[in-house]
Amino acid sequence: MPGLGDATRGRILFGGDHNPEQWPEETWHEDVRLMKEAGVNSVTLGVFSWARLEPRPGAREFGWLDRLLDLMHDNGVGVVLATPTASPPPWMGQLHPDTLPRDEDGRTEGWGGRQHFSHSSATYRRFAAAITEDLAARYGGHPALAMWHINNEYCTHDWGDEAAATFRRWLRDRYGTLEALNTAWGTAFWSQGYGDWQEVLPPRRVHHRKNPAQVLDFRRYTSDMLLECYTAERDIVRRHTPHIPVTTNFMPMWAGQDGWKWAAEEDVVSVDVYPDPRDPFGAQEGALVHDLTRSQARGPWMLMEQAAGAVDWRDVNRPKPRGLNRLWSLQAVARGADAVCYFQWRQSRQGAEKFHSGMLGHAGEHGRTFREVVRIGADLARIGPEAAGTHASAEVAILHEWNAWWAGAQEGRPSSEVDPARIVRAWHRALWEAHVTTDFAHPEHDLAGYRLVVVPQLHLLTDAAIDNLVAYVRAGGTLVCGFLTGVADEDDRVRPGGMDERLRELFGIRVLHEWWPLDPGEVVDCDGFRGTLWSEEIEAGDGIAEARYRGGELDGHPAVLRRGRARYVTTLPEPAALRDLLARAAAEAGARPVLDGLPARVEAVRRGHLLFVLNHGRGTVTVEVPGAHRDLLTGRRVVDTVELERHGVAVLAP
Amino acid sequence: MPGLGDATRGRILFGGDHNPEQWPEETWHEDVRLMKEAGVNSVTLGVFSWARLEPRPGAREFGWLDRLLDLMHDNGVGVVLATPTASPPPWMGQLHPDTLPRDEDGRTEGWGGRQHFSHSSATYRRFAAAITEDLAARYGGHPALAMWHINNEYCTHDWGDEAAATFRRWLRDRYGTLEALNTAWGTAFWSQGYGDWQEVLPPRRVHHRKNPAQVLDFRRYTSDMLLECYTAERDIVRRHTPHIPVTTNFMPMWAGQDGWKWAAEEDVVSVDVYPDPRDPFGAQEGALVHDLTRSQARGPWMLMEQAAGAVDWRDVNRPKPRGLNRLWSLQAVARGADAVCYFQWRQSRQGAEKFHSGMLGHAGEHGRTFREVVRIGADLARIGPEAAGTHASAEVAILHEWNAWWAGAQEGRPSSEVDPARIVRAWHRALWEAHVTTDFAHPEHDLAGYRLVVVPQLHLLTDAAIDNLVAYVRAGGTLVCGFLTGVADEDDRVRPGGMDERLRELFGIRVLHEWWPLDPGEVVDCDGFRGTLWSEEIEAGDGIAEARYRGGELDGHPAVLRRGRARYVTTLPEPAALRDLLARAAAEAGARPVLDGLPARVEAVRRGHLLFVLNHGRGTVTVEVPGAHRDLLTGRRVVDTVELERHGVAVLAP
Amino acid sequence: MPGLGDATRGRILFGGDHNPEQWPEETWHEDVRLMKEAGVNSVTLGVFSWARLEPRPGAREFGWLDRLLDLMHDNGVGVVLATPTASPPPWMGQLHPDTLPRDEDGRTEGWGGRQHFSHSSATYRRFAAAITEDLAARYGGHPALAMWHINNEYCTHDWGDEAAATFRRWLRDRYGTLEALNTAWGTAFWSQGYGDWQEVLPPRRVHHRKNPAQVLDFRRYTSDMLLECYTAERDIVRRHTPHIPVTTNFMPMWAGQDGWKWAAEEDVVSVDVYPDPRDPFGAQEGALVHDLTRSQARGPWMLMEQAAGAVDWRDVNRPKPRGLNRLWSLQAVARGADAVCYFQWRQSRQGAEKFHSGMLGHAGEHGRTFREVVRIGADLARIGPEAAGTHASAEVAILHEWNAWWAGAQEGRPSSEVDPARIVRAWHRALWEAHVTTDFAHPEHDLAGYRLVVVPQLHLLTDAAIDNLVAYVRAGGTLVCGFLTGVADEDDRVRPGGMDERLRELFGIRVLHEWWPLDPGEVVDCDGFRGTLWSEEIEAGDGIAEARYRGGELDGHPAVLRRGRARYVTTLPEPAALRDLLARAAAEAGARPVLDGLPARVEAVRRGHLLFVLNHGRGTVTVEVPGAHRDLLTGRRVVDTVELERHGVAVLAP
Repeated sequence: MPGLGDATRGRILFGGDHNPEQWPEETWHEDVRLMKEAGVNSVTLGVFSWARLEPRPGAREFGWLDRLLDLMHDNGVGVVLATPTASPPPWMGQLHPDTLPRDEDGRTEGWGGRQHFSHSSATYRRFAAAITEDLAARYGGHPALAMWHINNEYCTHDWGDEAAATFRRWLRDRYGTLEALNTAWGTAFWSQGYGDWQEVLPPRRVHHRKNPAQVLDFRRYTSDMLLECYTAERDIVRRHTPHIPVTTNFMPMWAGQDGWKWAAEEDVVSVDVYPDPRDPFGAQEGALVHDLTRSQARGPWMLMEQAAGAVDWRDVNRPKPRGLNRLWSLQAVARGADAVCYFQWRQSRQGAEKFHSGMLGHAGEHGRTFREVVRIGADLARIGPEAAGTHASAEVAILHEWNAWWAGAQEGRPSSEVDPARIVRAWHRALWEAHVTTDFAHPEHDLAGYRLVVVPQLHLLTDAAIDNLVAYVRAGGTLVCGFLTGVADEDDRVRPGGMDERLRELFGIRVLHEWWPLDPGEVVDCDGFRGTLWSEEIEAGDGIAEARYRGGELDGHPAVLRRGRARYVTTLPEPAALRDLLARAAAEAGARPVLDGLPARVEAVRRGHLLFVLNHGRGTVTVEVPGAHRDLLTGRRVVDTVELERHGVAVLAP
Repeated sequence: MPGLGDATRGRILFGGDHNPEQWPEETWHEDVRLMKEAGVNSVTLGVFSWARLEPRPGAREFGWLDRLLDLMHDNGVGVVLATPTASPPPWMGQLHPDTLPRDEDGRTEGWGGRQHFSHSSATYRRFAAAITEDLAARYGGHPALAMWHINNEYCTHDWGDEAAATFRRWLRDRYGTLEALNTAWGTAFWSQGYGDWQEVLPPRRVHHRKNPAQVLDFRRYTSDMLLECYTAERDIVRRHTPHIPVTTNFMPMWAGQDGWKWAAEEDVVSVDVYPDPRDPFGAQEGALVHDLTRSQARGPWMLMEQAAGAVDWRDVNRPKPRGLNRLWSLQAVARGADAVCYFQWRQSRQGAEKFHSGMLGHAGEHGRTFREVVRIGADLARIGPEAAGTHASAEVAILHEWNAWWAGAQEGRPSSEVDPARIVRAWHRALWEAHVTTDFAHPEHDLAGYRLVVVPQLHLLTDAAIDNLVAYVRAGGTLVCGFLTGVADEDDRVRPGGMDERLRELFGIRVLHEWWPLDPGEVVDCDGFRGTLWSEEIEAGDGIAEARYRGGELDGHPAVLRRGRARYVTTLPEPAALRDLLARAAAEAGARPVLDGLPARVEAVRRGHLLFVLNHGRGTVTVEVPGAHRDLLTGRRVVDTVELERHGVAVLAP
Repeated sequence: MPGLGDATRGRILFGGDHNPEQWPEETWHEDVRLMKEAGVNSVTLGVFSWARLEPRPGAREFGWLDRLLDLMHDNGVGVVLATPTASPPPWMGQLHPDTLPRDEDGRTEGWGGRQHFSHSSATYRRFAAAITEDLAARYGGHPALAMWHINNEYCTHDWGDEAAATFRRWLRDRYGTLEALNTAWGTAFWSQGYGDWQEVLPPRRVHHRKNPAQVLDFRRYTSDMLLECYTAERDIVRRHTPHIPVTTNFMPMWAGQDGWKWAAEEDVVSVDVYPDPRDPFGAQEGALVHDLTRSQARGPWMLMEQAAGAVDWRDVNRPKPRGLNRLWSLQAVARGADAVCYFQWRQSRQGAEKFHSGMLGHAGEHGRTFREVVRIGADLARIGPEAAGTHASAEVAILHEWNAWWAGAQEGRPSSEVDPARIVRAWHRALWEAHVTTDFAHPEHDLAGYRLVVVPQLHLLTDAAIDNLVAYVRAGGTLVCGFLTGVADEDDRVRPGGMDERLRELFGIRVLHEWWPLDPGEVVDCDGFRGTLWSEEIEAGDGIAEARYRGGELDGHPAVLRRGRARYVTTLPEPAALRDLLARAAAEAGARPVLDGLPARVEAVRRGHLLFVLNHGRGTVTVEVPGAHRDLLTGRRVVDTVELERHGVAVLAP
């Protein structure tokens, strides 16, 4: 199989989405001049080109794209060529309304925006396959072609009638019989027993509360239907160009795609990363996405989209202050990226994203943002030869899984304040602040390589996952596990006792009496720290209470319970407390921080033989880096300490 | 007519909804063992069993239910048998889309949840009658059968075409002619005059503001249509079993059903009570529902549903802390309940309510919640023989009525902050905190038996109701009346002067110049207290200002106006002030608190010859109870004082 | 062309909407008696009378209206006769569903409220023309007829199929070819290229983000469609009565109508003014609407609707405190109104607006509100002969324009906190507090007559408008311009550099690097003041920084940039700072406050030879008014100072 290395060939890819059909061709030549100045070596073409390529059903207008690929190739810019299937032309919806998705109320999502396609529409899939086939046939041999990009940000739903049919097909595949479906969905409750497949529908509008297992399966099905769309196109291009790697870009903290399952179908795992520049934990949000993507890729990965400045979809869209774009770009490389790309090269003057920044913004080539892009391009060229293809490794794994996420975010749960994404962010932040590098892992993965495994929250765990956790601890692994883990089985059926008995035994819990969710802003005192969001009335068996609740209804009950190398944390400790708890567990397990004594807001990451040191603060800091190094960015020799200005970075080789 | 006594036969019913079709039959035997341990003597079966009983149109699968009733009977557990008509099987919506309700935008509410039936659907009604008929025929003679439970929590709406037809039928019955409807609805305004009955529709989506009289009639109609569904099924079971009492469970603080009208059609008035365990006034919310239900029942009533621990429909669902379930259960008995039941016996492991607690929760028989259930069962067995069938009486009545509620909650009113439910809660709380037991009464009821009548807010009053109030005061009664009372007549037509002139005369008001709603959080100074929510610019006639506004635009205007035994309160005094105001009025009228000198957060209620003392606080308190008593719960003798631990209760007999 | 003077004939019109079809005819005579008492000389009839006039399709019931006009005429009350087309009768929607509008989801807006007509419906337009024709024919010669009032508060939308057809027709008129439309809408982005006119639709529901140029054109189109409805009816009545002026009432701070374009089609510009009595800046909101309306009218204008007390559409609807109705009525006259009218004469007892106050409220003729109305009527009679027909003039113009508003309020903009209406309010307030009278002007108007022109925010500016601004400054004019001005061209295409280069040159900006929107509540320090809402990273060319940012990311960057007589303000200064900044600019330009040394909350305005002094405060104040005057309201002589009690007004003639 081809991989990212086939596209990077020892470089770090730098560039972005390019939509030149918005501009007269004379602008293309200005683009090329400025790309050269910025060191751009990769552009993504064609993401939104379907209406241009196929202006009428079956027509093909390839001339402009021929010229464009030639131009890129002539100027040393590789092309990530997209199938344009994320945004069908208006004629498709007009002539074939069956290609349009319906929402849960039956309302059509029409053209005039984007992503107005039903994953279940046979008509859509036929048109998508045809344009993909023709693109692959025409450009498969083009020397500029470096990678295939299938569709874009798959994340749509359909509750319509054709979707109902594919949902039933998917359910038949999963359950075989209607009886098995009735059992899995618990339809005995609320008189929901299905007597005929035709009665089974997507979870459309109801008077009161949908069946949660149906909703969970609908999320699984939706992810799988989109994956079918992806693999259908992937298989076409792969047939034409077995040597060219294929990707599609994830938005991992939007929950729509089962990331582990999807990543297994990609040659290159790529991702869109958009932390909020206003967010004081933006850098950690980035690190989380980097770590997750690296773990999915099991090696170097591609940052497909980030913003050079502001986005346009928040209430208040702040640009990136001086140095932040460079800092976060290099952070991605530190955490394993071999491609640093943007949406988009040249900011649109029209259309829905004209206030989303570009590498070349409205301010033009003299704008600060473009000047920083030029600097980043030069930096990446310096780092590339030593970084590309190397691995960033971790001794600690965070378990995260989409089925558990979906089940843990369902309607009617004990607390709507408890959001799996929020919990995983809090735990990752704790380890990030402790300067401990983390991988992510699936709960059924082999965990033997990790000194410490943490489970922020996995509402749903399969039997295999539970056995895997137990075996990991038995084999000497250290485990820290958060609340609401192992509540449900694969069908979202609550396990007796409210938590799987193997887990209760693992942690030394005799009875889990009651869950005690806390109000927003409420805190609960524990020995040595304060808990938030959640608490629990448990009765210890042979587990030992490392900390107990103090005061309140749960006074004296265990807050953190430990049995051997396994801990169960029944609340969400305040950030510093969770950081200390996990740092302590890591230290006990022999997992070390990257560097000791790091100043606040300084991040350090090892990748291959390189040590990245990143200053997320706005003041100058001095960082101890014992030994002698060479800073790839400056070319200077660094001994024992390095000084980093605001948002400064050092990339140190031995 | 049969009544609750026919089911209780000197006991207090204890048990809950039981949905054993969720479980394998071996679990049924465990259920029976644990029911015995808990003293359960009543279960409600069949609420959600339609799909199981009638898996295909016209099919009947009674075998499992036969076995279940036999099992219950063999173990001394009585059965409240439900008609399963609140949740039709999927096949009904699939084969008969006319059975599904439409919302005001025409969107269908489908199956997959519950309560997806149109009250107006002839098809639905036919199927509902048939299954009811067959259930009554089969189980009418079963020795376990103690009560019929029709449907469940009637509270749905339909704006669809069949509903439009029944709405027109209902309006014809009410108004006779279209001209009368036009007059009642004030259609001369906004060019809404109807020229043909076919033009009359439910209040569907409009560009701007619906006709409020149409909306009011739609709420009346909806209540009546649901009542038709109820009485149709009731009449069927009554025909089979004239000796078995019939009920359906209310949710009285949801506004959908005209409580007085419905209660008159029931043999047993039953109710669902779900105060929030986090709510510091949860006990008062319970007391309010108890008082209202007891008043509707005119005697003992049935607590059909409460939660043993947490519910699942709040943002944050807290369990009941230690002792609270027992405390609130005994409070219900104190206030007249002869049945203390739960949703549900065994917590679901699947489906939409798997996080709603059960008597037997996920933690199982060793869980704290089940241990408390066992204790409550024992307590009720001790109290039952002396409490069941007795009456809790009150000298004070709170007037409350659904037509007034609906009219007072309409769009486009002077202040959307003024919500009739909020006002009635505030006034009930004031009297509850003053330890004065209250009944509820309809404004047209005979009020002669009450020393004090209070009217929190009755936006709409019929002429008969107004005359009733005037007569009550003339006959020596004491009346305290809140603002926005008597604003409108039965058709929601504003009465000249903004308040009926008989009422203005009663209170000594010359001119009601202007309503002055206050902002959220705003307070207004009055002599001796502060007002919230509302104020009024009135000019006194021969009424005397007991308190005036001080400062602000209304400086010097009457805040509380009194003429003889009638007072008009133009604002919502802060809680302690309203408590004092109503306590003073009660004392003047000769209505006494249950006990004098009660500590804070201790409630006392007399029922029959028993005195219930309930500690809602979390500390131990000593309560003065002059005289010698026997505590039914402990069997101990109590003289002059009783000590109650946190959430403790004493049930004192002479 | 006839004008407002033809209706006023030297008086100020006083009265309001009258909907006597709600009342028995005996009430009409009471109305007339009380109108006389109040000095009412004008009523608006027929706004909501369509169902009464045409109870069946094609029927005509004019008798009651004949009697009503005669009655008014006999009692000296002129009639503003409305076409009833804002609220079609129920039969129209029932028989002709094509007359009903659809929302963006295809949901019908039915009858039962008001304004349930599709501007695009040929059927609706045919019925509207017919009733207008017959009204004009019947009453064109009636001596009571003083003015025509077409429809009411035009402000509806339609996304339905017939609207789609008229939208395409409108777009063909605008663009000629589909290619031109594709270019204007930037459809090359997101694959939106249209290949056939049939594919072009109103901006209905999409999965993600609509095309903003399409949305902008839809707003233009909607305004134009409603204007077509207006002009069609206007032309009919004008044909019958060329001597009678025609109006329709605006709601200018609702954005639906392009005010400048509409005003050009009216003989009389009339407006609805509803500041919130609770709003401490209610008086300024009124002044803004007055100034805008006067500017659209280019002379005297008509206050068509205000409330004598409370309205019914806010969350909390406060009445007008004592004196406020009079104060705000006289303020309107001060700012150019020759008609002071209300919705409505007699408060409804039924229907959707029964809690909206009337001149004659529920409290009746003894109510405070009616007593104040009587006083206002007398005041206006005193002022009328000297005020009516005169002009209020200004030396300062605020530029405001609807296309820019619409474009500046689009989805996906840099900050959703930046709302053009909010910005224009803030700048008007600054000048109002500086006691500088302002006109409003269109950016393409001849501005030569103004000493100072301010541009709060004009996101979109045509080339002609930009050239107009540049020429104004070149000719010696003083300009102060706020941020986000000139961002886009007429098609909402972002101008290179993020701001038109002519403007950047005008203000001396070299590069506009980045927009920096601020969070809600965030402030940024500048030399001498604090900015809110927005900041900007600009690099000065030959402009001089009058103030710079201090601290934060933009430390040292220009906050206010000046080149000659042109200033660019990159933030929204806090209110006092903006007031001082604009007062300074006005003083430099030679534009003076109306009076010097005015106390806080006192407003002064000159109209013709009159000086209005208005006390918006609640205490008594003494105001210096140099010279000798005669107060028209009291008849007293005033020399050098005048004392005004709470909400008092003096109207001083030389």
